Amino acid sequence: MTAPEELSELAKSCTRFVHSHGRRSAAELLSEIPAETEVDRYGDGGAVSALEERVAGLLGTEAACFLPSGTMAQQIVLRVHADRRGRRTVAFHPLCHLDWREGRGYERLHNLTGVQVGEPARPISLADLEAIAEPPAALLLELPQRDLGGSLPSFEELEAMVAWARSKGAAAHMDGARLWEAQPFYGRSLAEIAGLFDSVYVSFYKGLGALAGCCVGSDVETVAEVREWRRRHGGTLYSLWPNAASALAALDKRLGRMPAYYERAVELAARLSAVPGLEVLPDPPVSPMMHLVFDATATQWEERFRALAAEGICTWPTPWPGEVLPGKQRVELAVGDATMAFQIDELVSVLARMAGNS
Amino acid sequence: MTAPEELSELAKSCTRFVHSHGRRSAAELLSEIPAETEVDRYGDGGAVSALEERVAGLLGTEAACFLPSGTMAQQIVLRVHADRRGRRTVAFHPLCHLDWREGRGYERLHNLTGVQVGEPARPISLADLEAIAEPPAALLLELPQRDLGGSLPSFEELEAMVAWARSKGAAAHMDGARLWEAQPFYGRSLAEIAGLFDSVYVSFYKGLGALAGCCVGSDVETVAEVREWRRRHGGTLYSLWPNAASALAALDKRLGRMPAYYERAVELAARLSAVPGLEVLPDPPVSPMMHLVFDATATQWEERFRALAAEGICTWPTPWPGEVLPGKQRVELAVGDATMAFQIDELVSVLARMAGNS
Repeated sequence: MTAPEELSELAKSCTRFVHSHGRRSAAELLSEIPAETEVDRYGDGGAVSALEERVAGLLGTEAACFLPSGTMAQQIVLRVHADRRGRRTVAFHPLCHLDWREGRGYERLHNLTGVQVGEPARPISLADLEAIAEPPAALLLELPQRDLGGSLPSFEELEAMVAWARSKGAAAHMDGARLWEAQPFYGRSLAEIAGLFDSVYVSFYKGLGALAGCCVGSDVETVAEVREWRRRHGGTLYSLWPNAASALAALDKRLGRMPAYYERAVELAARLSAVPGLEVLPDPPVSPMMHLVFDATATQWEERFRALAAEGICTWPTPWPGEVLPGKQRVELAVGDATMAFQIDELVSVLARMAGNS
Repeated sequence: MTAPEELSELAKSCTRFVHSHGRRSAAELLSEIPAETEVDRYGDGGAVSALEERVAGLLGTEAACFLPSGTMAQQIVLRVHADRRGRRTVAFHPLCHLDWREGRGYERLHNLTGVQVGEPARPISLADLEAIAEPPAALLLELPQRDLGGSLPSFEELEAMVAWARSKGAAAHMDGARLWEAQPFYGRSLAEIAGLFDSVYVSFYKGLGALAGCCVGSDVETVAEVREWRRRHGGTLYSLWPNAASALAALDKRLGRMPAYYERAVELAARLSAVPGLEVLPDPPVSPMMHLVFDATATQWEERFRALAAEGICTWPTPWPGEVLPGKQRVELAVGDATMAFQIDELVSVLARMAGNS
């Protein structure tokens, strides 16, 4: 067993998890799919159509299409926007998921070109957009932005950025993988937030904790084109119902918990400000997610992880890849069911120990 | 409810099914996934790695990669072959699945061009291949060929066609969606048949009756490239284990039944030769699948379907799209668990009634 494999096994042996919903077994995940689930045939009918209807209702879009993955969903909807406008560029943040975590499928499969906007370490601003001369096919905004600890622009800023896209004849597309988590900060309905955009992608396996899968919500014509491309991409599987049924169950179970996750994130961050050797980004959090930066060398980090794992508590076996600064480890903390199962005092104490406090 | 929807509902209400494994509920399909299944993370580990190992072993290939769908799998592996050879054409039968059932993703996403070989109504022959001047990137052969009732070339013919591909510097790729069903006819191991080819695609939801999903088997380098493209295509889902675990269970349960399915197909076809108004294609069958052509107008077909459905027996609510000839209806009969549950006398009698015999 390699060292990372061994740490990963140690993580699996834990019974309590600081991050998200913790480790869940196949049996536990499958048990969330109701026995009376109706099957689809090539994405038509059953749990798949039911989910599409539910999501279109939540987002206030005319229609929605279920797809196996966000990687597939977003390159498809961007291509549809691009083909309609006769343009090939998509403007996005330098840490856009499509650009550095998906092998640039948008470029290799769809002949789209990315235009990076703004700086890696901060969200896109209106001024960044105004600095672009070439009108893009689409502007992609990720809400909340995961690589920046779940940051969010104000609603007014968002409106201004979408207005900029419109003024350029570009589509406004939301990477809303975690849109569910953005809602409590804005204090507006999902439909109000989604309504600003021409198309919205939402995911089910992240904050909602379902099996893999996602939806694209948009107008009827766009969704119909997305559906055609889904088939070409190999995403119109013979049966999509297991993941769609899991998503429906997760919406029932966890969508209503988002405000509580968010409150806990804010409360936790406030408590952590008193802990030496630990920084919260952004502070205060604007979603149920934050990044934490700890004073720890790689060796110290591993020692502390092992000590807590020996008590059955899993923190992070491997921090964010690459030390952010020498002697600093960065991790993502998403508040989920497993996080909520901790009393806040114990959670603060666990995180303080990871920062080198005893 | 539209007329096709009403017929489809009638089909669902049946308790016995002539074709394949019949209608199975979500609960039944999920119950085949063992509770102790190990989960993967983005296709790595757990049931996914176990399935890949198992399939590589069965096919005798160095490696195998699990993918969500055949549509994704085949365009990817063909692109890998094409890029390596600096060619863009793929030679295939006019009824190739990629060409008319997948929205030509291979063309739209990968800039590949199809070269149709031979005639729609019969399998590709060596003479058809010898008539092509331009050396293609790959030759695709579908074994058995579904749109021709599961037809198969002789092993010697197969060897000669693969040799032709090699002589042109082209890759030999097998669309082996139903390779499992081809094995009994050849009387050779799966590895011997697969061993002729540079790459092989096999499916799990068809004859094997699992949830959706497939594998590509090939050498280590090709499979590694396929895996990279799977991510770009949006096929490297966060969790692929439900479908992979279902495939493992289906291999356990049904791979060993293929010879019995095949024997039943041959036996049934022999009995059907005595039935007026009914033709078997090919006759004798060479796989556990055949096409049946019935003397029936669309109206007669629907009446006979309804009469049998009233007895709880489902034949085919909708025949092969488009009458093959005026007053003729064509259907696909794949012998599966539901077919096997009939005594052969009753099965012959049911099919005779669909042909207009009383």
